[in-house]
Amino acid sequence: MRVKAVITYDGSAYQGFQKQTTTNRTVTHSIEKALHSLQIESSITGSGRTDAGVHATGQVIHFDLPEFWTDLDKLKQNLNRKLTQIQFKHITKSSHDFHARFSAKKRVYRYVFKTQKPSVFEQKYISYYPQFDTALLKQALSLFIGKHDFDYFHKTGSITHTTVREIYAAHYIQRKNNHIIYFEANGFLRSQVRMMLDAAMQCAREEMTLAQLLEQIKCRKKHSTKLAPPHGLYLSRILY
Amino acid sequence: MRVKAVITYDGSAYQGFQKQTTTNRTVTHSIEKALHSLQIESSITGSGRTDAGVHATGQVIHFDLPEFWTDLDKLKQNLNRKLTQIQFKHITKSSHDFHARFSAKKRVYRYVFKTQKPSVFEQKYISYYPQFDTALLKQALSLFIGKHDFDYFHKTGSITHTTVREIYAAHYIQRKNNHIIYFEANGFLRSQVRMMLDAAMQCAREEMTLAQLLEQIKCRKKHSTKLAPPHGLYLSRILY
Repeated sequence: MRVKAVITYDGSAYQGFQKQTTTNRTVTHSIEKALHSLQIESSITGSGRTDAGVHATGQVIHFDLPEFWTDLDKLKQNLNRKLTQIQFKHITKSSHDFHARFSAKKRVYRYVFKTQKPSVFEQKYISYYPQFDTALLKQALSLFIGKHDFDYFHKTGSITHTTVREIYAAHYIQRKNNHIIYFEANGFLRSQVRMMLDAAMQCAREEMTLAQLLEQIKCRKKHSTKLAPPHGLYLSRILY
Repeated sequence: MRVKAVITYDGSAYQGFQKQTTTNRTVTHSIEKALHSLQIESSITGSGRTDAGVHATGQVIHFDLPEFWTDLDKLKQNLNRKLTQIQFKHITKSSHDFHARFSAKKRVYRYVFKTQKPSVFEQKYISYYPQFDTALLKQALSLFIGKHDFDYFHKTGSITHTTVREIYAAHYIQRKNNHIIYFEANGFLRSQVRMMLDAAMQCAREEMTLAQLLEQIKCRKKHSTKLAPPHGLYLSRILY
């Protein structure tokens, strides 16, 4: 039986989502180890990778269950007992051709930052920008909306047949002392979210002009390929 | 010059406050290492120890500065740049006979728990008690108030001339989904707070009667010496 699971994890405990040959401290390795201890030899597939230090509140994975596992609630309980920094929120039966990555229609990221220095308890979960201009940030974000070739907004190293992605939403809200940026797209290239975030924050701090940002979005000139720090970033929702 | 510093730390990163021969992952070791890198060879003294996993928002320490260090703001900045899970909130000049431990008049601990399972992001900072009776908890806490011989509420292993301590306040409040218990005393024995907390929560879950708790407080009968989990506990204030 193929199952779809929604998971949340504390990215600060891992070197990223994807399995690596150099470290076992990856989300994939930890989950597969927990599955194997329950006699489930299936590997897992996620909706996409997250960088080291990037969190997830709604990452989606799929894997195949052997016949003898029928009680999905019990499976969830067992996995959550074995895992500490990863939590299974839901496990549901899916169609046999469901694919966490290829079936995904929309991906949503949330970025949380503060203008006061985060405390030692918040620093792995909230980023820090002492000052920025709200109006400029909103304008910068709006430039990303639409279908663009994001060739100037990604790290190389992943194979993809096109660098065109469509951003459906890019907005900013303030909730008490937390400042939050949302990005919703059909997909993101490697490190694209963090590169867009850094560029938008540069505009919001008047270190880059909106015209320069637009030049980069239109693949005319590369102004910056810096990445925003990972610790305020959350993969928050995948829509199918 | 003797200085007094108020520090905050994420206890989940350490094996406790006190220096140990078996590990360098202690708050004291990390601070002394940072001081030494600034040519300050003084050891530090804290107001008291905290167990592994216990946090602090207002731990107080003292140490002695060599003559050449006069700018305390710069010292604070330098230390905060070197330390990640520990933050210096204030460093102020104190009288030469100030002693972080012996001069302390009152110590305040805060314990935070939830009745919903804490998320992966909260689990090192908030404890979990799915259900409890508020009225019983308040009654249990009130029994601790006053001067008592806490001989049945501590771990052995620390030298102390008396096991009598005075609890000035022990109260419970709810703030949204967070439940908070405060303890204020002239001092606490080793693991006393966690043992009192566990006993109070046992009463609040009807696993121990208030009469049994009172028997233990009056050193008549030991009913439980279990410890509450450390991860919801914060050393929050020291008064001099």
